[in-house]
Amino acid sequence: MIELDFAKQGGLVPAIVQDAVDKTVLMMAYLSPESWQKTLATGEAHYWSRTRQEIWHKGGTSGHVQKVKAVYVDCDHDTVLLEVEQVGAAACHTGHRSCFHHRVEGDSLVTDGEPVFDPKKVYGK
Amino acid sequence: MIELDFAKQGGLVPAIVQDAVDKTVLMMAYLSPESWQKTLATGEAHYWSRTRQEIWHKGGTSGHVQKVKAVYVDCDHDTVLLEVEQVGAAACHTGHRSCFHHRVEGDSLVTDGEPVFDPKKVYGK
Repeated sequence: MIELDFAKQGGLVPAIVQDAVDKTVLMMAYLSPESWQKTLATGEAHYWSRTRQEIWHKGGTSGHVQKVKAVYVDCDHDTVLLEVEQVGAAACHTGHRSCFHHRVEGDSLVTDGEPVFDPKKVYGK
Repeated sequence: MIELDFAKQGGLVPAIVQDAVDKTVLMMAYLSPESWQKTLATGEAHYWSRTRQEIWHKGGTSGHVQKVKAVYVDCDHDTVLLEVEQVGAAACHTGHRSCFHHRVEGDSLVTDGEPVFDPKKVYGK
């Protein structure tokens, strides 16, 4: 397996997640050694949920999995870039395609784009 | 100023840095409250150097500054995406355009692309 520098940041490595086709940055999440291994072994993105303190198979609830198309490791081996196909078109729990949908305009944030799905319908809450 | 959730990760917020034109992910770095303010105020990327424990004006030594074209804040306000024009074409201290130039291929890492500049000439070391 490819070794990452998990020690540098308390056992986790940040993963930037980018659409493999149009290069939109969809989200950032964190990898534990086990979720890194599962991501490489299964070809679907697995992260470490810092909130729930457990392995998080992205899309396990919603069906909106991320099929990994390419994996890059940075120069310091402490950050990862995943190029993915986002099933269901949206990566954000708000229903927006990207978690980065708040654009800075002067001293304000404006929302770019509309949600792709209704989170209440997908997550039932 | 736009408020970020600096408390969540010990006072720093990760910033993903993407080329504004072709959407290549160039690097990831960390923002302190002061570097965030300087980035917004000057239009050039400033980070917090965790190694040197000081504000880091990216390109201050090499001249390869990052001109900020757009700024996005994520759904949780704890991660930032900067779209930049990378002066000098390369963001990585190795001379590669992107820090993410190690591609995973099976159990190995292969290097994508060639360095754009010679770090010895740019940094004098």
